[in-house]
Amino acid sequence: MKVTLIGSGNVSEYLCDWYDIYKQPVLQIAGKNRKTVSALARKYKTKTAYKPEQLLAHNGIYIIAVNDDEIANAFNYWYNGKGTWVHTSGSTDMKVFGKKPGSFGVMYPLLTLNRLSVASLFFEIPFLVEASDRKTLLKIKSFLKRTKGVFRQADSKKRLKVHLAAVFLNNFIHHIGTLSFRMIKDIKLHPTVFAPLLRVTMINIFSNNREKLQTGPARRKDMKTIEKHLAMLKGNPEMKAIYQVITNSILKNYR
Amino acid sequence: MKVTLIGSGNVSEYLCDWYDIYKQPVLQIAGKNRKTVSALARKYKTKTAYKPEQLLAHNGIYIIAVNDDEIANAFNYWYNGKGTWVHTSGSTDMKVFGKKPGSFGVMYPLLTLNRLSVASLFFEIPFLVEASDRKTLLKIKSFLKRTKGVFRQADSKKRLKVHLAAVFLNNFIHHIGTLSFRMIKDIKLHPTVFAPLLRVTMINIFSNNREKLQTGPARRKDMKTIEKHLAMLKGNPEMKAIYQVITNSILKNYR
Repeated sequence: MKVTLIGSGNVSEYLCDWYDIYKQPVLQIAGKNRKTVSALARKYKTKTAYKPEQLLAHNGIYIIAVNDDEIANAFNYWYNGKGTWVHTSGSTDMKVFGKKPGSFGVMYPLLTLNRLSVASLFFEIPFLVEASDRKTLLKIKSFLKRTKGVFRQADSKKRLKVHLAAVFLNNFIHHIGTLSFRMIKDIKLHPTVFAPLLRVTMINIFSNNREKLQTGPARRKDMKTIEKHLAMLKGNPEMKAIYQVITNSILKNYR
Repeated sequence: MKVTLIGSGNVSEYLCDWYDIYKQPVLQIAGKNRKTVSALARKYKTKTAYKPEQLLAHNGIYIIAVNDDEIANAFNYWYNGKGTWVHTSGSTDMKVFGKKPGSFGVMYPLLTLNRLSVASLFFEIPFLVEASDRKTLLKIKSFLKRTKGVFRQADSKKRLKVHLAAVFLNNFIHHIGTLSFRMIKDIKLHPTVFAPLLRVTMINIFSNNREKLQTGPARRKDMKTIEKHLAMLKGNPEMKAIYQVITNSILKNYR
């Protein structure tokens, strides 16, 4: 199946990598930014399009991989009435494609895609998929099968909720990790000492018993230890604010 | 080496399990709560002590595994001047043993120990260890070697900081998981759809590049999506508060 990527940013580069591994080469990369488009096209040996008239017409898939705010503009600028057009955004409604007749859909990869992280390439990506009609849905399904994506159907409302959960489960957890390791930088203990703890944390999160698996001072209502921790965070207002808001939530949930 | 456990709660039960697996049986369980002490003793075929005069004297290790607040009391109540006495608390100073002569230490397991989670049993536990003298330190080290614990030296100040980091990395991440899965309960998507995302999140946290691996609306300063998410959380003040405080911290860190 022919694939065209609209956009030359992080997600676009990531998808090039992904499709390269699964032998589904990208035909063309389209975008106004000549520098990033041509760099990406050179790296993955694809054609380029800097203007709509250069966009090759085909019956495959056109993937709009740009910032959420720019999806509507990119679509209106590049749309050629051919093939199936999809975007990859978790929080953008399919209505973004307007009322034009045609084959439209969404393929939201439920993973943090970052060109610096090779880790993601080792896992099957679950894609939340939505389509304008049954034929398009089956087309996207078959495309994902070729590229080792896992197909899950979800409408825009459901996808938005999953996206919000993903912000908590990836973005926020990641930031807590960043702040925590920064805090203990001076004590010269290798971060991997926390590896068993984090692995067990991940496993426990998926347990049906997860509420019973909550531990810690807030769960035990050990106010002395909480006070001790807050005193330690006096010079770190950001972590202190996070400590307080999550501790209050745990105290409230387990009272 | 002979082992006596003081206390019959969560940590005590967990250690019984652990020592059972690694063929380091517990000799005696001591505590005032006859019901829980005798239940645990039956399960692990150990002797019991309900009063100090029943405590068997030996040159091994006496492990005080009670709530942080009760360590000082338990020590003063049970101490018989024999063997090495340790506690297992991350946030309790070794000064809790007072100025009595003798062999004292701390063995803080950097893991969430919960009898409902078998997961922890599959990992080597890193123990942060402190001791009153070199002989005691070597004794604890050799004890941990037998029971597949990983030895790391850390004084009370360092241990307290690690404990605080562990509250963020386990307790808070776990609670975020609990709230997130509760939020999406109604959309009937199996939690395992988030498994690749969480695995990659865990791997990324350990990367030296972790700040560059931060993604999400706050990282991109995508205020439109942030507003959309906050509107979705209107009926969920707890998650909204967590969303705001972590988003503000990300915005501040990456400006």
